[in-house]
Amino acid sequence: MQAKPKTKAPFYAVILAGGRGERFWPVGRASRPKQFVDLFGGKPLIAHAVDRLRGLVPPERVLVVTSRDLVPATRAALPALAADQILGEPQARDTAAACALATAWVAWKGGPEATMCILTADHLIADAAAFRRTLRAAAAMVARRPAMGLIGIRPTYPATGYGYVELGGPVTGAGLPKGFRKVRRFVEKPNLGTAATYVRSGRFAWNSGMFAWRASTFRAALAEFRPALLKATDRIAAHFGRRSLARALEREYAGLERISVDYAVMERARNLVAARGDFGWDDVGTWVSAGAHFPHDAEGNAVHGLAEAMAAHGNTIVNAEAGHLVAVLGADDLVVVHTADATLVCPKSCADGLKALVKQIGDDPAKAVFVR
Amino acid sequence: MQAKPKTKAPFYAVILAGGRGERFWPVGRASRPKQFVDLFGGKPLIAHAVDRLRGLVPPERVLVVTSRDLVPATRAALPALAADQILGEPQARDTAAACALATAWVAWKGGPEATMCILTADHLIADAAAFRRTLRAAAAMVARRPAMGLIGIRPTYPATGYGYVELGGPVTGAGLPKGFRKVRRFVEKPNLGTAATYVRSGRFAWNSGMFAWRASTFRAALAEFRPALLKATDRIAAHFGRRSLARALEREYAGLERISVDYAVMERARNLVAARGDFGWDDVGTWVSAGAHFPHDAEGNAVHGLAEAMAAHGNTIVNAEAGHLVAVLGADDLVVVHTADATLVCPKSCADGLKALVKQIGDDPAKAVFVR
Repeated sequence: MQAKPKTKAPFYAVILAGGRGERFWPVGRASRPKQFVDLFGGKPLIAHAVDRLRGLVPPERVLVVTSRDLVPATRAALPALAADQILGEPQARDTAAACALATAWVAWKGGPEATMCILTADHLIADAAAFRRTLRAAAAMVARRPAMGLIGIRPTYPATGYGYVELGGPVTGAGLPKGFRKVRRFVEKPNLGTAATYVRSGRFAWNSGMFAWRASTFRAALAEFRPALLKATDRIAAHFGRRSLARALEREYAGLERISVDYAVMERARNLVAARGDFGWDDVGTWVSAGAHFPHDAEGNAVHGLAEAMAAHGNTIVNAEAGHLVAVLGADDLVVVHTADATLVCPKSCADGLKALVKQIGDDPAKAVFVR
Repeated sequence: MQAKPKTKAPFYAVILAGGRGERFWPVGRASRPKQFVDLFGGKPLIAHAVDRLRGLVPPERVLVVTSRDLVPATRAALPALAADQILGEPQARDTAAACALATAWVAWKGGPEATMCILTADHLIADAAAFRRTLRAAAAMVARRPAMGLIGIRPTYPATGYGYVELGGPVTGAGLPKGFRKVRRFVEKPNLGTAATYVRSGRFAWNSGMFAWRASTFRAALAEFRPALLKATDRIAAHFGRRSLARALEREYAGLERISVDYAVMERARNLVAARGDFGWDDVGTWVSAGAHFPHDAEGNAVHGLAEAMAAHGNTIVNAEAGHLVAVLGADDLVVVHTADATLVCPKSCADGLKALVKQIGDDPAKAVFVR
């Protein structure tokens, strides 16, 4: 943590693109998770995630970490990336392992003083320029200070589905970018009343799951809090650029702890700073929140694809099958999602139960298990 | 009306199978109306209508009157019928014309003293044996008397969607079958309160649209009330069994009045008698009433085809596409109908609006008109 900052060290962007598709079932699937869902702006979310980095990092400094099964789909969605810019994890081991692996890769490519950001693949960001400004500032901050930067999001409503961080005083110093705050504490998903007090106080930000750090800084934190993970990823790193990489990943991942980077590192670290992001961040976590991004008719129906709503109000209707007609008559506040092999109907108020439905029947209609 | 009854005159069964498909959209279509809908007992309603005649009339004494466009589909559904047992009307002219045409056909085949019944193709009948007993009795009645028999249905609830007939005293006489009543008057679809008094009184029956008469008796009624129609169908009858039939139908139908047999003849006739049918007659007029005939799960969901209902109650779910999965989550009292090219979602309470929906968008998804 005492390494002298190299102000000209390269900046890398890492996109974590594991994730599952159940919250967007039946468009999303185990084999086609959220980052491949093509409902917004004509391309999958992961392509948006890479495209919005233009002007921030050169394409060769982008790394995507996904699951091994999804590597072919990821390559297909991101033809501009070289093969070694997509790492496939043999097992899901949550974000601590993915961040450690990504940091090892960045250090291998750019040296230990390279800076990097950890980004997500399954969010919409309305103001990409503001997003890039925030990340540029975070890169400058972590280049100058051995700190770990968390991209906090200014909360716009009392969300109960996100973690929050409580912000402390401003981070000041010669040459440091403005607007960073110390992080007092992490808070788990609060109830509605607590969330409302957080929003009113102005002292809290949503934890976006996006971070920035220098490779050496994160490695030092791993050495302190998760030394076994650091050693495992160092052993993997010896195989970067070699055909033996897949086997090394296989060997090491089996023994890795399944834990988020928040629990494993961030909540314990004392060198955390937060940027307050304000760039129209939307995790489009459910069909209901996704609907906000679709065209709306005069009756407040959010419609994606070919559909007719008659005497119907406030529905979210997604039709992903060309040539098929979805008609909603006289119904209010439903989610209706149609694909070539499955159709979902549920009230908006029940959209959170989708995970349970997919768990029960399986996400593949050809293999669905019906309980009667 | 004074012709001597021939007790051994043959008995014919005529099935009127015009009709439209909009109340069963999207399974029913203009090109696949209700009688072809294959939702009950593994075959289309029209095949049920013919099959339940077994033991009542021999197959060669069955006539189906349908629209010209539907003749190929009707032949395909009823391979046991000869080509001349299916008559295609070039235009829809309501039931008076269809009954007059059918009566001319029966007189051509069986002579003027042949007896016949007029049946429908789009109903379910739970007790086919009781149905045949009722028709056998009606055949005996109209063979012995120059009367027109109406198959009344004992009302089981105060329906507001059917016409009623008020029954008078019993029809008695040597050799006459039992259970027939005189008909006092026809009543249009009543409101709920009136319907309830009808049901309570025990003096009313639903007008099933099924009738029985001797050909000569109906021809006499036509001569009295609709002479132009009788003349037109006599002109058509000269072409039965000849290639010129289609052109004769075309020529005569263009000028025919569009009127129901109830308005044109039955409500004016004085020689009407009613059988009280009690054989589980169900007009399955809507998706909601159709649902009663589907298997039900423990939560009262009526399900036809592959579907999963989770935390959902009282829905009618029809999935007519093999390999497709319909999932209803957390919703109550919806109608969800899926076919390969269209999906309908509406609350049960709005199922009556289906006609308006189909009118607005057209019933063919490939040609649907979207109003935005």
